[in-house]
Amino acid sequence: MKFCATCGGAIEQRVPEGDDRRRFVCGDCGEIHYINPRVIVGCLPEHNGKILLCRRAIEPRHGYWTLPAGFMENGETTAEGAARETLEEAAATACNLRLYRLLDVPHISQVYVFYRCGIEEGRFGIGPESLETRLFDEADIPWDEIAFPTVTEVLTEFLDDRKQNVFPVRHSVISLPDKFRKH
Amino acid sequence: MKFCATCGGAIEQRVPEGDDRRRFVCGDCGEIHYINPRVIVGCLPEHNGKILLCRRAIEPRHGYWTLPAGFMENGETTAEGAARETLEEAAATACNLRLYRLLDVPHISQVYVFYRCGIEEGRFGIGPESLETRLFDEADIPWDEIAFPTVTEVLTEFLDDRKQNVFPVRHSVISLPDKFRKH
Repeated sequence: MKFCATCGGAIEQRVPEGDDRRRFVCGDCGEIHYINPRVIVGCLPEHNGKILLCRRAIEPRHGYWTLPAGFMENGETTAEGAARETLEEAAATACNLRLYRLLDVPHISQVYVFYRCGIEEGRFGIGPESLETRLFDEADIPWDEIAFPTVTEVLTEFLDDRKQNVFPVRHSVISLPDKFRKH
Repeated sequence: MKFCATCGGAIEQRVPEGDDRRRFVCGDCGEIHYINPRVIVGCLPEHNGKILLCRRAIEPRHGYWTLPAGFMENGETTAEGAARETLEEAAATACNLRLYRLLDVPHISQVYVFYRCGIEEGRFGIGPESLETRLFDEADIPWDEIAFPTVTEVLTEFLDDRKQNVFPVRHSVISLPDKFRKH
């Protein structure tokens, strides 16, 4: 961030009065431009015991499989956003949404919210951000080709929970793998 | 938003190619500046059966009572943010944090995440954003002076849940009161 979005003035980084961390502050009009974590909303759609996955047509992780999910938009709820992403990426109408998972990914300042859901009439297709979409039996899930650690974690837990038919809402943190940490 | 934060060019509002909603787009460099919902993280601190509330020293709702909560910062988890806010607003060290509530407030594009917690050694004080802080017995909670509907909802449910000593993680939507809706 170099310029103030409000007045076009030059941005400086400093700790504003009464604050305790560096912010982007306009040198001209004094406006503080906060940058906050972003919310990713998604669904874990299940139909006849199978799980709907989408193969990504976009970067990052082009060609890898994922659950339908994406950035939450202003003016929607987390459930509405999760259903919207399911429609956009898999042309499927999510139904019976139930909150399932909150995942923090602090090293990229993201919070994931996943809902379990059904698929209306079992219908799905291929949205513009997907190369293909498919209902997977547990035994066929392409574990080596899952796009993101968040998806692997949610899928793994869901399959475990399903054995007991109990689906507690859990919270966890996805950390940066050790090999990428700064020492 | 009037100016591009990257190049200082004039911002226009239009639907970018491949998108389906209006965004802030730079007329010069073409960068799309997304505006996303913000996450508010907070705690419901309990000590010896009493609940810690803070009386706000800042707007909005100056002088009203609230649970310690505030905007999540980049690089932290929701639980870390909730504990940070509890320290900042009530000088209390939150312990034993357990995810409790997700609340969507779509008309202001906010998502609230609340944790139940204890207070280390029962110690608390008054942070710079609070006029006073106090441990309330259920019977003494100042229901008419609660700052926000989210706080009223979380407190009400918590007191209900406590009777059964079962605290399911729930999700709900706080809507704009009818009288404020556009028709």
